[in-house]
Amino acid sequence: MDQSTKHILKREPAIRVNGSLWLESDGKRFFGPGPVELLERIAETGSISEAAKRMKMSYKKAWELVSALNERSVNPLVVPRTGGEHGGGSTITDEARELIDYHRHLRQRFAAFLAEETKNLKL
Amino acid sequence: MDQSTKHILKREPAIRVNGSLWLESDGKRFFGPGPVELLERIAETGSISEAAKRMKMSYKKAWELVSALNERSVNPLVVPRTGGEHGGGSTITDEARELIDYHRHLRQRFAAFLAEETKNLKL
Repeated sequence: MDQSTKHILKREPAIRVNGSLWLESDGKRFFGPGPVELLERIAETGSISEAAKRMKMSYKKAWELVSALNERSVNPLVVPRTGGEHGGGSTITDEARELIDYHRHLRQRFAAFLAEETKNLKL
Repeated sequence: MDQSTKHILKREPAIRVNGSLWLESDGKRFFGPGPVELLERIAETGSISEAAKRMKMSYKKAWELVSALNERSVNPLVVPRTGGEHGGGSTITDEARELIDYHRHLRQRFAAFLAEETKNLKL
């Protein structure tokens, strides 16, 4: 910090620039940290309801997120799990994995932006 | 868009990367679009209650935002208006104007980041 800079904000506790990101279309958010975590949990557990439970999210809310994702995608991201004579359960497609991967990289770029802004904060 | 790229997400309606930014300390947000607009309205109207009214915000909420801002600042950002024989009213300090100015530039840098991410979206 330049010694000549007059501080406007107190330095303690430390200040950071933070934020959130999402994808939207028509002003409606459909993709961000919540949906990504849900996809990951569905992949882990093989079940939308189990995934919802682990996120302390209602099944209804999880189903709405999955439905919004599938609706915005050319091909479904969450599909019924096949195999196993009892059937049941859900899994995610390769395209969902690509989305998760994209999101990780997007978060990294955003984290770099936020770190840079925090470092340059001269208030 | 590269013709060889397989789309995962539907192109219509158009997708954009969007987000929000704020300053926080100790995990608590104290500065972002809401507080900035409040400061601007106080400057315009010379009154916290009038500023709150124009933002359809309760006086209590506005007062809390002002109080959080003043608490995080070396010198107050919102002060009683002086002059005028009836007194009363509030105004913002030069330091508040510097904060508003910083916020405008921060938003511009963030808008550039979001535009770049939206342009590069290959999903």
